[in-house]
Amino acid sequence: MKLIIAIIQDKDSNRLSNAFIEQDIRATKLSSTGGFLRSGNSTFIIGVEDEKVADVMDLIKETSKTRKQFMAPPVNLDSPMEAAGAYPVEVQVGGATVFVLPIDAFHQF
Amino acid sequence: MKLIIAIIQDKDSNRLSNAFIEQDIRATKLSSTGGFLRSGNSTFIIGVEDEKVADVMDLIKETSKTRKQFMAPPVNLDSPMEAAGAYPVEVQVGGATVFVLPIDAFHQF
Amino acid sequence: MKLIIAIIQDKDSNRLSNAFIEQDIRATKLSSTGGFLRSGNSTFIIGVEDEKVADVMDLIKETSKTRKQFMAPPVNLDSPMEAAGAYPVEVQVGGATVFVLPIDAFHQF
Ligand code: NI
Ligand code: NI
Ligand code: NI
Repeated sequence: MKLIIAIIQDKDSNRLSNAFIEQDIRATKLSSTGGFLRSGNSTFIIGVEDEKVADVMDLIKETSKTRKQFMAPPVNLDSPMEAAGAYPVEVQVGGATVFVLPIDAFHQF
Repeated sequence: MKLIIAIIQDKDSNRLSNAFIEQDIRATKLSSTGGFLRSGNSTFIIGVEDEKVADVMDLIKETSKTRKQFMAPPVNLDSPMEAAGAYPVEVQVGGATVFVLPIDAFHQF
Repeated sequence: MKLIIAIIQDKDSNRLSNAFIEQDIRATKLSSTGGFLRSGNSTFIIGVEDEKVADVMDLIKETSKTRKQFMAPPVNLDSPMEAAGAYPVEVQVGGATVFVLPIDAFHQF
């Protein structure tokens, strides 16, 4: 068994939760408030057999990895008409930080 | 020293907290919101001497293990009188998932 | 890489967050509600290179260690004038519990 701790952006956490449920992977979500450096993140604790670690990595990568996304430009409240002809802006979203930890023992009661 | 991470149901967390206090075991409770597979759980982080790991396991097992419990049947709001003669139903409650982790160092400042 | 889990008092958590940002140390803050034995605490998860572990320890110690502090005495609401000439009281604040954990693997996606 390994304990995996994965920190991902809030916006990706529902998709990751659903992926874990579909694959029968036991995970618990902790609320990380006031996270900094990456505000608005979720921390998952996942217990898996050694041979499933790579599968969990793939799921996290697929649902949560850093990627570019086009967003509507922010509206200037002082002169909202200015944004009317503005182009969408490309921003970076997502990103996952993952630790795989050895464990001495695992119990279920 | 070991670091124990225990995920238990919310309904058992006060009893476990009290048991830890009585036994002078230092524990911190993290809020696990949106936990899935087991909704409504609490995650405890406990630091203990190697020789007390078994005691902590016993406390967790005693307060939080999976067990059967009789509950009043849910009331049917459309015809509430129907439940009047209904039998209590037996449901499964509790359950604990516990990881024991090795540590490289432990400090208190 | 090491994974550091640090439990500190809420009142010190902003200063520690700022210190981590200044030093380019990646940390995530979990909300620990209902923490007992030390109510009102914050739990930080920090991933660092082995050679920076000592620096992180220093930061935690500097911002969060147990210390004495003078506080205005609590006001007696029944006879508030009594406190007028009272001396400030010295109380103990702060304190950090820190675990350094080995990791098998670290990934960023
Ligand atoms: Ni294993
Ligand atoms: Ni030890
Ligand atoms: Ni290392």
